Amino acid sequence: MAAEHTIIDRNAPIGVFDSGIGGLTVAREIMRQMPDENIVYFGDTARVPYGSKSKNTVIRYSRQIAHFLRTKQVKAIVIACNTASAHALEVLEAEQDIPVLGVIKAGAETAAKTTKNGRIGVIATRGTIDSGMYEQVLREIDPEFRIFGKACPLFVPLVEEGLTHDFITEEVARRYVKDLQYKDIDTMILGCTHYPLLRTLLRKVMGEEVTLVNPAYETAIELKQLLQEKGLDRQADRSEPAKYEFYVSDLADQFQEFANSILPYDVAGTEQIDIEDF
Amino acid sequence: MAAEHTIIDRNAPIGVFDSGIGGLTVAREIMRQMPDENIVYFGDTARVPYGSKSKNTVIRYSRQIAHFLRTKQVKAIVIACNTASAHALEVLEAEQDIPVLGVIKAGAETAAKTTKNGRIGVIATRGTIDSGMYEQVLREIDPEFRIFGKACPLFVPLVEEGLTHDFITEEVARRYVKDLQYKDIDTMILGCTHYPLLRTLLRKVMGEEVTLVNPAYETAIELKQLLQEKGLDRQADRSEPAKYEFYVSDLADQFQEFANSILPYDVAGTEQIDIEDF
Repeated sequence: MAAEHTIIDRNAPIGVFDSGIGGLTVAREIMRQMPDENIVYFGDTARVPYGSKSKNTVIRYSRQIAHFLRTKQVKAIVIACNTASAHALEVLEAEQDIPVLGVIKAGAETAAKTTKNGRIGVIATRGTIDSGMYEQVLREIDPEFRIFGKACPLFVPLVEEGLTHDFITEEVARRYVKDLQYKDIDTMILGCTHYPLLRTLLRKVMGEEVTLVNPAYETAIELKQLLQEKGLDRQADRSEPAKYEFYVSDLADQFQEFANSILPYDVAGTEQIDIEDF
Repeated sequence: MAAEHTIIDRNAPIGVFDSGIGGLTVAREIMRQMPDENIVYFGDTARVPYGSKSKNTVIRYSRQIAHFLRTKQVKAIVIACNTASAHALEVLEAEQDIPVLGVIKAGAETAAKTTKNGRIGVIATRGTIDSGMYEQVLREIDPEFRIFGKACPLFVPLVEEGLTHDFITEEVARRYVKDLQYKDIDTMILGCTHYPLLRTLLRKVMGEEVTLVNPAYETAIELKQLLQEKGLDRQADRSEPAKYEFYVSDLADQFQEFANSILPYDVAGTEQIDIEDF
């Protein structure tokens, strides 16, 4: 399918998906930076987490979600999940005739611009670290970069338990990043969408000398530029404010509670769908 | 389907399933207490965890797994997962014409026999606690029991990070059980199959006055009695030692690593199947 032959409606929504609730940090950045854009968000809460699943499984899940989002006539797809970006971005780019963005490239490019000593840390789920995807993208930018990855499997459950400012999480964080500190990194990528919610704590643990890169923020910037370049940014009618729709594969109530705690407005309704039908 | 009209092969294997690796603590007890029995274990590692999923989803998954186990000609099914026992035991009992056991009843009955003051604590995943299933079974035994449940969502990831004897886990445990200690319980059910691996640490935190009940152990006893009563215990030919087969829905290697760390022998091979085909 060749992208140049497809007529895409610039007023259509942006599709954003994640393995669960973490991708809401990406949706939040898109809402902040592109307040006119409509968004359809899908959180795969029935099959979360992706971080401990194999590449083939994550590709299969991502394909189903892309099919679902296309039924909502989205004009672009943002993979707001590092694991799915690592495993499934290339496949979806090849199969879809609309723009597809992952969070990894934007994060890696910003880290590449930020680092002065070429020593970059990446913290993420086991799946993202094992995929080596940040390392691969960073080395394509500069083969001289030294990249140090560290899987932090406890961060997501700690955030979901609300312990974002707790000494338990701080102690866990100190152990996780100890290796990275010995490696003299000057830049650290928050390679999982939950991690920006630990920013204050990680700043304290890492100190001011290490710059934290938030791929959610960088992805929203990249998306904005891409939509403008392609003439796909919404021509907003001021009488019609942006619309946000939320879909999940399980437990809509719990999703909504978390969404309301991190989004700047209250989510009115979240619909549960059977993603295995797509 | 009426169980009394079905001819069941007493030399067939016992089917055991769990959302992932935790149910191996149940399989381990069956191996210890019934060394002659063959076992087919299924761990749903692609869709783990069940504890945060809705009842309908867990029922659907459990049905698929029962269908898979029947293709292995099992003579009985043990639901070695508290969440699945809470949500799906009744459905599987009604649909299957072979014995189906969950871990909750055996654990509840032992706790009922153990308690002296009638005040029983239950620690488990969010799904098991919210289901109220331990409470329901205990109240059927004695409506005067006072039951105090506490969801402990961080225990599973902490165990899977290998922090079973760590002060971080101890601090998390102290917070989780503080409420239960104020309630003056004398018996506490370890309502998740991972928790027996935290037994030493929980013993330290709770003190000697509180008896810890391990449903994995009690379930193996109940299964043994049931098979003997029904004439379904294997007539072992000593030249043929018990056979154990392991199946997972994802990441067979990781499963095998954990299995080798907790089972009394090395798991030779684990096969990955597509559970959504069943």
